[in-house]
Amino acid sequence: MQTPDLKIFLQQVAAGKLSVETAMQRLEHWPYEDLGFSKVDHHRQQRQGFPEVIFAPGKTAAQLKSITRALYQRSGLVLITRLAPEQVKVLRTLKLPLKYNAIARCAIIRKPSARIPEKGCVAVVTAGTADIPVAEEAAVTAECLGAKVDRIFDVGVAGVHRLIAHRSQLERARSIVVTAGMEGALASVVGGLVACPVIGVPTSVGYGTAFGGVTPLLAMLNSCAPNVAVVNIDDGFGAGFLAALINRTGAQ
Amino acid sequence: MQTPDLKIFLQQVAAGKLSVETAMQRLEHWPYEDLGFSKVDHHRQQRQGFPEVIFAPGKTAAQLKSITRALYQRSGLVLITRLAPEQVKVLRTLKLPLKYNAIARCAIIRKPSARIPEKGCVAVVTAGTADIPVAEEAAVTAECLGAKVDRIFDVGVAGVHRLIAHRSQLERARSIVVTAGMEGALASVVGGLVACPVIGVPTSVGYGTAFGGVTPLLAMLNSCAPNVAVVNIDDGFGAGFLAALINRTGAQ
Amino acid sequence: MQTPDLKIFLQQVAAGKLSVETAMQRLEHWPYEDLGFSKVDHHRQQRQGFPEVIFAPGKTAAQLKSITRALYQRSGLVLITRLAPEQVKVLRTLKLPLKYNAIARCAIIRKPSARIPEKGCVAVVTAGTADIPVAEEAAVTAECLGAKVDRIFDVGVAGVHRLIAHRSQLERARSIVVTAGMEGALASVVGGLVACPVIGVPTSVGYGTAFGGVTPLLAMLNSCAPNVAVVNIDDGFGAGFLAALINRTGAQ
Amino acid sequence: MQTPDLKIFLQQVAAGKLSVETAMQRLEHWPYEDLGFSKVDHHRQQRQGFPEVIFAPGKTAAQLKSITRALYQRSGLVLITRLAPEQVKVLRTLKLPLKYNAIARCAIIRKPSARIPEKGCVAVVTAGTADIPVAEEAAVTAECLGAKVDRIFDVGVAGVHRLIAHRSQLERARSIVVTAGMEGALASVVGGLVACPVIGVPTSVGYGTAFGGVTPLLAMLNSCAPNVAVVNIDDGFGAGFLAALINRTGAQ
Amino acid sequence: MQTPDLKIFLQQVAAGKLSVETAMQRLEHWPYEDLGFSKVDHHRQQRQGFPEVIFAPGKTAAQLKSITRALYQRSGLVLITRLAPEQVKVLRTLKLPLKYNAIARCAIIRKPSARIPEKGCVAVVTAGTADIPVAEEAAVTAECLGAKVDRIFDVGVAGVHRLIAHRSQLERARSIVVTAGMEGALASVVGGLVACPVIGVPTSVGYGTAFGGVTPLLAMLNSCAPNVAVVNIDDGFGAGFLAALINRTGAQ
Amino acid sequence: MQTPDLKIFLQQVAAGKLSVETAMQRLEHWPYEDLGFSKVDHHRQQRQGFPEVIFAPGKTAAQLKSITRALYQRSGLVLITRLAPEQVKVLRTLKLPLKYNAIARCAIIRKPSARIPEKGCVAVVTAGTADIPVAEEAAVTAECLGAKVDRIFDVGVAGVHRLIAHRSQLERARSIVVTAGMEGALASVVGGLVACPVIGVPTSVGYGTAFGGVTPLLAMLNSCAPNVAVVNIDDGFGAGFLAALINRTGAQ
Amino acid sequence: MQTPDLKIFLQQVAAGKLSVETAMQRLEHWPYEDLGFSKVDHHRQQRQGFPEVIFAPGKTAAQLKSITRALYQRSGLVLITRLAPEQVKVLRTLKLPLKYNAIARCAIIRKPSARIPEKGCVAVVTAGTADIPVAEEAAVTAECLGAKVDRIFDVGVAGVHRLIAHRSQLERARSIVVTAGMEGALASVVGGLVACPVIGVPTSVGYGTAFGGVTPLLAMLNSCAPNVAVVNIDDGFGAGFLAALINRTGAQ
Amino acid sequence: MQTPDLKIFLQQVAAGKLSVETAMQRLEHWPYEDLGFSKVDHHRQQRQGFPEVIFAPGKTAAQLKSITRALYQRSGLVLITRLAPEQVKVLRTLKLPLKYNAIARCAIIRKPSARIPEKGCVAVVTAGTADIPVAEEAAVTAECLGAKVDRIFDVGVAGVHRLIAHRSQLERARSIVVTAGMEGALASVVGGLVACPVIGVPTSVGYGTAFGGVTPLLAMLNSCAPNVAVVNIDDGFGAGFLAALINRTGAQ
Repeated sequence: MQTPDLKIFLQQVAAGKLSVETAMQRLEHWPYEDLGFSKVDHHRQQRQGFPEVIFAPGKTAAQLKSITRALYQRSGLVLITRLAPEQVKVLRTLKLPLKYNAIARCAIIRKPSARIPEKGCVAVVTAGTADIPVAEEAAVTAECLGAKVDRIFDVGVAGVHRLIAHRSQLERARSIVVTAGMEGALASVVGGLVACPVIGVPTSVGYGTAFGGVTPLLAMLNSCAPNVAVVNIDDGFGAGFLAALINRTGAQ
Repeated sequence: MQTPDLKIFLQQVAAGKLSVETAMQRLEHWPYEDLGFSKVDHHRQQRQGFPEVIFAPGKTAAQLKSITRALYQRSGLVLITRLAPEQVKVLRTLKLPLKYNAIARCAIIRKPSARIPEKGCVAVVTAGTADIPVAEEAAVTAECLGAKVDRIFDVGVAGVHRLIAHRSQLERARSIVVTAGMEGALASVVGGLVACPVIGVPTSVGYGTAFGGVTPLLAMLNSCAPNVAVVNIDDGFGAGFLAALINRTGAQ
Repeated sequence: MQTPDLKIFLQQVAAGKLSVETAMQRLEHWPYEDLGFSKVDHHRQQRQGFPEVIFAPGKTAAQLKSITRALYQRSGLVLITRLAPEQVKVLRTLKLPLKYNAIARCAIIRKPSARIPEKGCVAVVTAGTADIPVAEEAAVTAECLGAKVDRIFDVGVAGVHRLIAHRSQLERARSIVVTAGMEGALASVVGGLVACPVIGVPTSVGYGTAFGGVTPLLAMLNSCAPNVAVVNIDDGFGAGFLAALINRTGAQ
Repeated sequence: MQTPDLKIFLQQVAAGKLSVETAMQRLEHWPYEDLGFSKVDHHRQQRQGFPEVIFAPGKTAAQLKSITRALYQRSGLVLITRLAPEQVKVLRTLKLPLKYNAIARCAIIRKPSARIPEKGCVAVVTAGTADIPVAEEAAVTAECLGAKVDRIFDVGVAGVHRLIAHRSQLERARSIVVTAGMEGALASVVGGLVACPVIGVPTSVGYGTAFGGVTPLLAMLNSCAPNVAVVNIDDGFGAGFLAALINRTGAQ
Repeated sequence: MQTPDLKIFLQQVAAGKLSVETAMQRLEHWPYEDLGFSKVDHHRQQRQGFPEVIFAPGKTAAQLKSITRALYQRSGLVLITRLAPEQVKVLRTLKLPLKYNAIARCAIIRKPSARIPEKGCVAVVTAGTADIPVAEEAAVTAECLGAKVDRIFDVGVAGVHRLIAHRSQLERARSIVVTAGMEGALASVVGGLVACPVIGVPTSVGYGTAFGGVTPLLAMLNSCAPNVAVVNIDDGFGAGFLAALINRTGAQ
Repeated sequence: MQTPDLKIFLQQVAAGKLSVETAMQRLEHWPYEDLGFSKVDHHRQQRQGFPEVIFAPGKTAAQLKSITRALYQRSGLVLITRLAPEQVKVLRTLKLPLKYNAIARCAIIRKPSARIPEKGCVAVVTAGTADIPVAEEAAVTAECLGAKVDRIFDVGVAGVHRLIAHRSQLERARSIVVTAGMEGALASVVGGLVACPVIGVPTSVGYGTAFGGVTPLLAMLNSCAPNVAVVNIDDGFGAGFLAALINRTGAQ
Repeated sequence: MQTPDLKIFLQQVAAGKLSVETAMQRLEHWPYEDLGFSKVDHHRQQRQGFPEVIFAPGKTAAQLKSITRALYQRSGLVLITRLAPEQVKVLRTLKLPLKYNAIARCAIIRKPSARIPEKGCVAVVTAGTADIPVAEEAAVTAECLGAKVDRIFDVGVAGVHRLIAHRSQLERARSIVVTAGMEGALASVVGGLVACPVIGVPTSVGYGTAFGGVTPLLAMLNSCAPNVAVVNIDDGFGAGFLAALINRTGAQ
Repeated sequence: MQTPDLKIFLQQVAAGKLSVETAMQRLEHWPYEDLGFSKVDHHRQQRQGFPEVIFAPGKTAAQLKSITRALYQRSGLVLITRLAPEQVKVLRTLKLPLKYNAIARCAIIRKPSARIPEKGCVAVVTAGTADIPVAEEAAVTAECLGAKVDRIFDVGVAGVHRLIAHRSQLERARSIVVTAGMEGALASVVGGLVACPVIGVPTSVGYGTAFGGVTPLLAMLNSCAPNVAVVNIDDGFGAGFLAALINRTGAQ
């Protein structure tokens, strides 16, 4: 219930158009209706500007289909991440306009009316080729939220000049996602080159003391560049979401 | 060497005003001069929109004074963090217009001309009173970079209604810094309430299995709200810096 | 040997019906017989009010069948947790009145006479849908021990209003089990809303720095709500057991 | 605002006794007023049956005095934990009826009317003498919340018979707090002897691989006795609070 | 080169039967020949009283067969641990007098002349049934080295009276191996009951925070009983070897 | 109650000299009296052949004096470890025949009649000079329990020949204590040279990734020599105790 | 752009053969062209004396083939590490002169003209047979870079004399690679015997507290021999690369 | 006993000038004398080309003086690291030609004859000013072993162009020491720029998740540049020692 609605509601009570009993019923659930606990998806979209996103792992075929269908009907825009190949087959049976990005392991189902027009630019950078699936998850997510995405892949610090060659691309981004495994140094180096916020995504690329991404995570948290923040290991979705939010800030 | 300078330089070579030998000497160091390695501070300010910040711990009195004086003369704006009380005394001997925030342990020295006009709003939130020093470091930093700051302190999740009462303040911020120790749950709850980016700062508040901030760090990295990014433990400066960058994105 | 038995025993010695030698032999083992080491199951039921529970992983078909049969004959009530599908088939060959909960991965075999009448109420709460198997294990266990169970699922802190909507259910419970993975913040938020003890069960739901449940474990141990205690990762059984014990305390 | 109040409120609007504008103002803050965000202390006492407890470390003399005075005036009962000796001196200047337990490092300030009558019994057990400060914190807290406390100290598992000698004391408790450092085995052994809930408090007693309490924490989380839950390292307050809540459940 | 050989060698030099040059060559390698680097197995048996033991994991069929055959021919006694089922089949093709213990996953191949007569007694204790494979590895190893072994299984601390019932068995052992997973408390309790050395073997039994045996390892390292030493997780072989060495000390 | 006492007790019941009621009262507490819970120290000495040892850290002057006096009177032999200098002064005021070893930080107070005659030999080895305090604690403890001690100090593996030079000393020991910090390799090398049990004591000597003794602990737990068992970091007392127990096994 | 090219370039500008505009365009990218970002492989070979090495895991068949072909054409020398058996089959379809070392899991494809002549000697040592695959990876890499390699396998510290027997081989090496799992002590012992740099490679050989190579890693980092440096767990390639670089230093 | 001595010795036996008995006594200890266990320092110098280095922490004044005097007399060259200021005063009382580097916390005492002539060049690089003490320790050590040292300080990756400006210095070094705390990325970036071996020294510079140097350690171990090896946290001495050894390899 928005503030204007609230005024109308109270005017109706004052005018006797709404009985005290009916008013009480509505008010008892009001903060939750207003917050939408029984209409979860609508409210999330209002509150955060984007509908809920489906994290596929562990969902059964039945769950995946019913949640997808429900979200599609209500918001016209569904993003599903970390899809296993057999889950994609399940989704295709829904006969919805599904676009699947196999590298990102993401699917997007969207009514034409639900497209968010792209404004502003986000860069997504990887240290190596093995980081690309995580980077694509970030890129697809950011595009879904209305950002143009510049992909700059395989520019790790062992050959720092490859990165410097893309400086102009980096400089025109409103925010940058840096995905890197192993020693994760790329986030710091990129952070030092640009003025915009950098979202570091440590990846589980590496072996031995890479500890499944802990090492690049720690490296990024200790970045000597002050414009670097970090998300969970392999969390391309979260990084793309944040980068797009920052980009949207600039678009307002 | 700016682009106009470069044109003049080449015209001088073409015109024979500059010998090939002299030109070669200058060009050999050019990319670095252009990047300003010997004029570090000016270039940082151009590249990132803010001069270098001084991290005080471990600096001797002499080092602190000479770096501060140099930065003040060049950029007119010096931010010094994590100052020990005796270091503040040292700085006061410089007879510069120093403002010291004892809770944040920060000092700002600024020429009137160097003030960045405040635009847009950042919220800085704490779970408890013990998180306030870190939060103040974030707030002072963000103000220094031109953000208005809303301080919302002591709204931890054990009484979640206190937080909800400040929802309108949270909603008008372009970015939010959440400082929390112990279980660090506040970042997730704030993230779920708002649409803007949230920068989580785990603090070393707590004992035993708080492990000096590792527990809130892990909690924030695993936030179920997708709009939360994280910086190092107790890194109020980094969080304030990022929040202000995001705010500035919205101001452009 | 119960106290009445002890009296009879000593009266027999006093009356010469029991020789000193025979009496000595019996007394040498008395404290252990009294504690029932050779009748393990009966004594556990007397000492703790509930027979031993079978933890299925690693048990062979033969072991599982013989332990189940023995416990069923003696106590009429068998709870078996963490059953693999093939172990359920093995148990069905026993032709006992087995009820299997596939989500909880638990089976109950019970003589009608062994039913513990339900009194009082325990709430079992989950942050997400992926936590439901652990929550069901807790719920089944608590029901087995005579508690009514209110299931409140998918009320994680990213949408805190969903939880608040169930406050009256939470308030009528004598104890609450909270299962949550990722950042585990739900235990603190529930703890802050209610006056009863809360048993937190960190789950292995999450990826990367969730570290298989370590992150929600640490978060729950550092809860700012003082009425939260914690059990092992994914230990739904332990949490349900404790919640039912607390509920039983209220029923006495 | 309780349901009866809500009815009256709406009837006043319907009757024109309350203008729409005034009604709107009140409704805007309603859920929070109902939850008492501006009367924090009173609401905590209503919601959880006990006023807020003051954790002394890091509080300044001024903060400590003003919070203590405020809580004393409102609820007549103040519990302050982890007091440093100099903080005790500060509190004495308030001229309130303070009782200080130096071993527990706790102070209680209580109006005669605020005493919670003792009902039921909680046992507090230690493995060694070095665990006594944590155990006393638990005992003082539990007494404060209306539990009688049986102290059973120095009964560690290297001489398990000492513990068995106190079995009748253990059996009459409604809940038991077990404090132990080093290998923390006592919680399991006590758990195996009794039918009531056991709250394990790992202590930082030990050296080397005791890792400041991590080892007994892990041991207690993996207890083979299913009636053991765990709180943070050295958290005597939390354990005593929970034990007293469980005891109170039995008293209702 | 034994001392008698050394005397003969020097007498040959003194007598001119051995030229200075030849003597120099032999002396250059002497300490290593004396230590038998090229006759590894014989020397190990002389130095430590038992031939090398074969750790099967990772060995190919060919390696396993050739090492086994060589050790059998030289020392007449081969102990092979951690055998996979298919490796047992490989060994059977050698047509040697192989005895395979499937629970312990060990094989012994022994000439009748190589049997070490059993003297003295070692106890091998387990907390639960899941620890039995590790315990059997210890028992088989200790028997191989000439110890009688008392197996005392499933006497974990949740029912401490079961253990006490076996006190006389524990007291007659010259050393005791305690295998336990989960909280590993059994080593401390056994250590407190007896006067002989106790070798704790943490096992990987458990889940969640048992961390694959790290928790019982830490618990055993912090035992409050001073007669407990620890070996690697699941290292039944090492524990049985040490227990047998201690037993042999008593037999000399 | 010893077996003879038990016979007399039952004969008194049989003869009517002891009433059934009185007998019942005594039997109820019998197992604990028999185990001596109220005469703790005497029973420990009977059960383990050595009285309780006092661990000084954290004990007040009053506690230290009263425990020492009590143990001295009952058993005539007191070993106190980890004494701070001021605690030694406290103990001297008892006017007992105290011998203080400043390097080992141990004191021994012994009646002439309580001396355990030295038999058999234990070697105590250190990698470096910084390990000597831990080694001396082990040596003093072992001597106290009746072992002769060979001290072999500063024979770390960076110069492995220094160690080999002491091989005959190592070979005549019935058990060996090896103290080493840093990489802790000495335990493996010693273990490979001898046939007797080796007790490894990781020390907190080192910096950085020595992690206060965790590194040598892990190294010793993974020793490729099967005759190495390990105790807690810096636990010279435990190692000396175990080495002496093993030596005593050989002396029986 | 090499220095001679730079001279020519400026002479062309001076001579008017190159317009200022064209010159500006070229200069803008000059530092990157000089560093060769678009000719990655050639530059790596110039900068580091060896072309890029292909790390096979995670590469698709198509990626593997195209990268291999490209590198072969440009540099005539391709080293591919960590090859899975099916990847080897893929490479064989390229019909290039491939040599595959199955134990090292490495392939080398080399034009006769690309062979680096072997000079100087590197020793590669293992503690056990299970370390051989890592050691072979190091050996193959070092040979590829022009080092002769002495393989000294299975000389672990449990029989230190086996190692000492190879001292002359160790002494003639310009650098030594030591691969060891479990307690990793071999690096220290080798380091103490020789004067040249030792590269320690911790391997994931072992179980339990070997923690997949963390234990030998920590041991090697804490080596008491100052001539030991360490690479990542199982990183035979890195160690062989470094050892060959050091050897090459001696060859210049 | 050197080879010439050995010949003389055997000739004396052959000539009857040395009795078999006397010869046997000498030979029994020969390998150790040959290896110099009783002349430790001389042999180390022969074996590794540099005398033992004194690690000052934990050494008493008396120990420090006697070891220093002994080493000075025998080898004429003493390097002492990690000196506390009061230990320097102690050393000055020896009246030896001591040179103290306060930043490196090292002292060198050297006879003019013991100077190793400087050949070849080593670079020592730091990320920040706080890494300089560790870097100076490395530099002083390397100079002591005969390397010229290029110091390149404060070239961290947040401004990567500062580093690139020193490329020619880096390229002329035979080996490079890189000291860096925080995220430790500098080692990878330097490694990617040069062809020589790089020794990474993680420093304990940083806070929070820098974990006292663990983060840069992990980063350096996972360097994507294959020419990086790592030493212990803050181990400037070890890094300088290795860099000088590598430099010496090039000088031979």
